[in-house]
Amino acid sequence: VIRARSVVPSLLLAAVALAQGPRPASVASPEVHADHSVTFRIHAPKASEVMLTGDWFSGGQKLTRDDGGVWSITLREMEPSIYIYGFTVDGVAIPDPVNPAIKLRARTSASLVEIPADPPGVWQARDVPHGAVEINWHNATAIDGKSRWFWVYTPPGYQKEPNRRYPVLYLLHGNNDTPAGWTMVGGANYVLDNLIAERKAAPMIVVMPFGHAVPFGEREYKGKDNTTLFEEYLLKDVIPSVEAKYRVAPGRERRAIAGLSMGGGQSLRIGFANLDKFSAIAAFSAAVPADFERRFSAALNDAKGTNAKLKALWLGCGRQDSLFPRSQKLAELFAAHQIRHTFHDTDGVHNFTIWRKHLTEFVPLLFGR
Amino acid sequence: VIRARSVVPSLLLAAVALAQGPRPASVASPEVHADHSVTFRIHAPKASEVMLTGDWFSGGQKLTRDDGGVWSITLREMEPSIYIYGFTVDGVAIPDPVNPAIKLRARTSASLVEIPADPPGVWQARDVPHGAVEINWHNATAIDGKSRWFWVYTPPGYQKEPNRRYPVLYLLHGNNDTPAGWTMVGGANYVLDNLIAERKAAPMIVVMPFGHAVPFGEREYKGKDNTTLFEEYLLKDVIPSVEAKYRVAPGRERRAIAGLSMGGGQSLRIGFANLDKFSAIAAFSAAVPADFERRFSAALNDAKGTNAKLKALWLGCGRQDSLFPRSQKLAELFAAHQIRHTFHDTDGVHNFTIWRKHLTEFVPLLFGR
Repeated sequence: VIRARSVVPSLLLAAVALAQGPRPASVASPEVHADHSVTFRIHAPKASEVMLTGDWFSGGQKLTRDDGGVWSITLREMEPSIYIYGFTVDGVAIPDPVNPAIKLRARTSASLVEIPADPPGVWQARDVPHGAVEINWHNATAIDGKSRWFWVYTPPGYQKEPNRRYPVLYLLHGNNDTPAGWTMVGGANYVLDNLIAERKAAPMIVVMPFGHAVPFGEREYKGKDNTTLFEEYLLKDVIPSVEAKYRVAPGRERRAIAGLSMGGGQSLRIGFANLDKFSAIAAFSAAVPADFERRFSAALNDAKGTNAKLKALWLGCGRQDSLFPRSQKLAELFAAHQIRHTFHDTDGVHNFTIWRKHLTEFVPLLFGR
Repeated sequence: VIRARSVVPSLLLAAVALAQGPRPASVASPEVHADHSVTFRIHAPKASEVMLTGDWFSGGQKLTRDDGGVWSITLREMEPSIYIYGFTVDGVAIPDPVNPAIKLRARTSASLVEIPADPPGVWQARDVPHGAVEINWHNATAIDGKSRWFWVYTPPGYQKEPNRRYPVLYLLHGNNDTPAGWTMVGGANYVLDNLIAERKAAPMIVVMPFGHAVPFGEREYKGKDNTTLFEEYLLKDVIPSVEAKYRVAPGRERRAIAGLSMGGGQSLRIGFANLDKFSAIAAFSAAVPADFERRFSAALNDAKGTNAKLKALWLGCGRQDSLFPRSQKLAELFAAHQIRHTFHDTDGVHNFTIWRKHLTEFVPLLFGR
């Protein structure tokens, strides 16, 4: 039985899609089995080597060819999650050609496979009221004046309480991702729905802007690095657009910033540079800025002042993540300066499986819960 | 210069993305030139044949290999639009592996290439107020009870006029598409923004549900064909969800239905079966129901009554579309029964290039404009 993710209900179709056209009917990929093993297949009779790549392991794994030219591999005991993967066919890296579950990215493309948890995990649809995610377009005056999108989660009931104002979490994606990532792969909308339904999180708005301000592959634009330019865009364009349209509770006490990987580095740099605007900061598996200690020495040397401002300062990283030492070192730096913080170090690599857990841990700490 | 579509601002990155990793820096694909020619490339040194497929031509076109293993083809004088394409490498159909512009589909995946018009076409971002597109999730009680998404365009100013109610267009996608298609490829949000800004269209809500009710590749589910089940879902789940959440003007006079291809067939069948609920119907390059004449003989034989109910009945199809004879025959049937209608027959094939024009023609006819 192939199963796919309900956040993208189109994928439900894949559940029973029969391979059509030139491909033999046996080529269904990925096939998620009830025991949480997954079979990946591709019909490529002329290929001499096919590899599987994925965000839950390093390097590649070889597929085996059958007499019909179908290559396959089965991986066992996978933790329920949504994973990113692809094939490399004779050196050409491609998404799975028969899998419609595709990740939107900043460059290249990749496939998604969901192994559903039973009962549904906090990152999956449960029978609770659902919020919605709105795609907005505006001109990025702080960057190049061109049209750019940002995605906004509004909690269940937002329309039914027309005078209520909500706190806001700015939630940033990683390198080579888009504003769609936290919804389409991270399941952030379901995480919020489920935590709100359990009264573990305050109803809040979550804003997901596009974190690549400098064109992908370049170091600078108009002489500014990506985080500098993104910070200007966030403060000059995104926050004003959000506060002009959505019923946002005013003030730093009702505003938080968090992100994963590149977005974690952005959260740390933008959050600490704007403690007048943000009262909570989280960095998941962060690309911690190399100059953090020098850049924020004043905040580090004023533990009393900084601790009074930061209601939550949260770091998380998987111990098998190559970025782990950077989070660990930052946690040590905070400890040495008596900056109150949480460092959530667990097993895990650099993927959404852990970032969903980070979000689930962090969100309940926000906004006076 | 590679240029990409502003509706998916992530793609702006592709504008300057340098090919990285194992691919040589020269492999940028697609490359859209100022003269509206496009070069498609793929680095596949071990392949023996590479073909280009696209939604603007039939069959495949062969790419040519250079000494470095890069295959390429340049197509000239392409009409500005967003096209769907892919490669077939030694028989394996894949999206363009270095192009992040990907179409979400019901099965398999495909790439997108945008050739921008200058000045921007009605389907592109112009410097006008923008509406937004909201992704909603609900349980499809009429189908299988599972989570399903629908996308909703709200016009500029929707939040600023909290007591205003808006008419609604239900806009249906084609076979193997998703609710994302009309926004991500069709640019329907920009078409509406631009027509509203020019006062050619009434501010309206546009609802884009998921039109595959029967699992893809199957003929029936619970003994019902796709349109029958989709009609039940639309009437029982989608319209009530929309009217519970959005500020919708009540009544059939403020409700229209339109769709492309499969969705055009659905619009005709559902629209004519529910003239108490819809006052305007459009079918773009429609898969016209084979039994339309028999099924709706009562409406056809009551020209006076039907004409009084239908404020707009609109058919459009490209003359180079294999479905053209079906629209033509339907228009003749309407004419023979003196059913007032428009048949917009122009040059064109079965793709979004013409469906955007159809939408642009039809929307100004709606809601008393």
